Amino acid sequence: MAEKLSDAALDTIFRTARTYNGYTDQPVSEAELHAIWDLMKWGPTSANQLPARLVWCVSDEAKEKLAACSSAQNAPKILKAPVSVVIGMDQDFHDHLPEFFPHVDARPWFADPQARTVSAMRNSTLQGAYFIIAARALGLDTGPMSGFDNAKVDAAFFADTPNVRSNFITTLGHGDPATIFERLPRPAFEKFNTIA
Amino acid sequence: MAEKLSDAALDTIFRTARTYNGYTDQPVSEAELHAIWDLMKWGPTSANQLPARLVWCVSDEAKEKLAACSSAQNAPKILKAPVSVVIGMDQDFHDHLPEFFPHVDARPWFADPQARTVSAMRNSTLQGAYFIIAARALGLDTGPMSGFDNAKVDAAFFADTPNVRSNFITTLGHGDPATIFERLPRPAFEKFNTIA
Repeated sequence: MAEKLSDAALDTIFRTARTYNGYTDQPVSEAELHAIWDLMKWGPTSANQLPARLVWCVSDEAKEKLAACSSAQNAPKILKAPVSVVIGMDQDFHDHLPEFFPHVDARPWFADPQARTVSAMRNSTLQGAYFIIAARALGLDTGPMSGFDNAKVDAAFFADTPNVRSNFITTLGHGDPATIFERLPRPAFEKFNTIA
Repeated sequence: MAEKLSDAALDTIFRTARTYNGYTDQPVSEAELHAIWDLMKWGPTSANQLPARLVWCVSDEAKEKLAACSSAQNAPKILKAPVSVVIGMDQDFHDHLPEFFPHVDARPWFADPQARTVSAMRNSTLQGAYFIIAARALGLDTGPMSGFDNAKVDAAFFADTPNVRSNFITTLGHGDPATIFERLPRPAFEKFNTIA
């Protein structure tokens, strides 16, 4: 049976975690990138489709390529972060189902390209959220962003795999508290929830 | 600075957590539904747009309404679970931005209805993942599902708010270990990740 998390752990992944605009000089190791994947990969996706395809930009060259596709406000954040990540989605994820859903041939469930595009979007986004929580759980911080040109990112990073499209991007590192703004309000349960 | 989670906590939210097909008789209290919201609401969304709209089906009547919109395989799970939840998305979330992003008028950023639909989908899905992790963090279990008719669910639950559409649905309770299957494989880092 699952054990509840401590208050400190709930703070780390939700309550005091923040979106960072900048990071300290503390580096992020390749082992930490693997550790994030080794947590986030366990999060559920429909029929274990695992559509997310991640490009971890650690070199200056890769960050410059990504910054060139991004809004003027986001480009400097991408350049300065220890790691900037493109969370992409494979719209032909069904090709891998025999490996990840081996007990039955689930490929026909995803035969319709339009429905598959929606499924890749939904499930790679779930994986993007697992990425954010996994990074926080390991003592790292993130700065997810939508302010970029998807077509440019696709051309820059996924030209050889046209079935892969960008979903969203994010920075990663040890957050610098000086770079966060006042926390934005969140509503009480009653505002956006109904008990039926 | 964020504190890393313990191994036991990482197990609870990722490594040993599972998707459940059935639950024990242990009830889920209304206080627990509020506690899930009070964690998941802190997860980041673009411009704090918070597009998710949740309908928590706790009555037999509500579960029957949802089961009638779902696949033959999912209907009995929905009926038997302590709680079954519709995770919806408000495609007119921008109307609420003056409350949740008060320091600047962000509504013009989301003026295009088509882009707004994509944003509502992406960000309500992030919130759906936060829901899954928040429930696990509180010692509960979930069973997320896509096998239902979105149009039927929209007609049954969101007829009075046509700007709200269903994203995905999930059961919630204390998982019965007898209802889970063998764990599906997950790939090593190299398969779906690139370091650039």
